[in-house]
Amino acid sequence: MNIILASKSPRRRELLTMLGLEFDVIPAVGEENVDESLTPGETVMSLALGKAREIAEQHPGSLVIGSDTLVYLDGKPMGKPSDEAEAANMLRQLSGRVHQVFTGVAVIHEGVEKADFEKTDVQFRELTEEEIKWYIGTKEPMDKAGSYGIQGQGAVFIPGISGDYFNVMGLPLCKLWSMLPKVQGE
Amino acid sequence: MNIILASKSPRRRELLTMLGLEFDVIPAVGEENVDESLTPGETVMSLALGKAREIAEQHPGSLVIGSDTLVYLDGKPMGKPSDEAEAANMLRQLSGRVHQVFTGVAVIHEGVEKADFEKTDVQFRELTEEEIKWYIGTKEPMDKAGSYGIQGQGAVFIPGISGDYFNVMGLPLCKLWSMLPKVQGE
Repeated sequence: MNIILASKSPRRRELLTMLGLEFDVIPAVGEENVDESLTPGETVMSLALGKAREIAEQHPGSLVIGSDTLVYLDGKPMGKPSDEAEAANMLRQLSGRVHQVFTGVAVIHEGVEKADFEKTDVQFRELTEEEIKWYIGTKEPMDKAGSYGIQGQGAVFIPGISGDYFNVMGLPLCKLWSMLPKVQGE
Repeated sequence: MNIILASKSPRRRELLTMLGLEFDVIPAVGEENVDESLTPGETVMSLALGKAREIAEQHPGSLVIGSDTLVYLDGKPMGKPSDEAEAANMLRQLSGRVHQVFTGVAVIHEGVEKADFEKTDVQFRELTEEEIKWYIGTKEPMDKAGSYGIQGQGAVFIPGISGDYFNVMGLPLCKLWSMLPKVQGE
């Protein structure tokens, strides 16, 4: 069975490799149109399905995995920061609070579409202005939704999570596994 | 400041590197004697301190980090499996249950000793005998306390955790950071 990961994220590639699966990477390029009336879970499932459908249409014989991750604080999505001032503002908002990371995952195989999502609560400790300045100086926040990376120096801001860690990294592995056809020998 | 990690664990090395720190690795070799009257948290702190003290005595000018991780189910420690049958038994015990991972961390610097620990709850979903057989076939369980690795194919058994993920990997990064002297620029 040929598996395709429809994502350009190096972290998703790394996670799928961790499961011992062989797969190709063919990133979806389509527009990500979000219906603002959807809930966070519906939104990430819809985005994941859109990516998987785009690649499944081009490769009908393969199993295609699509995924999308969004960070929410108080029910509002946080994107990637456009500059250092915006990154600092996002980090100030996250400081001392719990926020939510939603990842949608879609699997399309032999014309059957499955989609689901996971939610993980992420706790930030209180950050000082000095820490925010230091962290922005590492450049880590600049290409990340919510202006932090849990797998990086951002780890020192996060005393704990509740839910699937790999969901925060971009792919809920336990959920995805339950959506895949059984592997040989399992 | 010269930092020494007193552990041979490649995962701890990887985690400490993730923080952007430069350090040497000098594993402690001393006996790990456990006082059975101690609580899980006291046990891992004691083991972490033992490792850090051994290396700190040899390198009094350095900052030394020691760490030790134990897996507990129903308050009883789970070691590494001695064979496949024992690994299968441990996985059957973990199936469908929540267990605890305790990591102790010790920092010795300029004669001052600090020690602390973190506890993370890890949820296993129900495993079938076929899944246990498949997982043992991957060889992943054989060198790991509790017979599983969260960062590996074992990830598909774990829908969620509560607490610090890096603690399960062997080093509670947020806690450790709070025990280190402030880095330049922070």
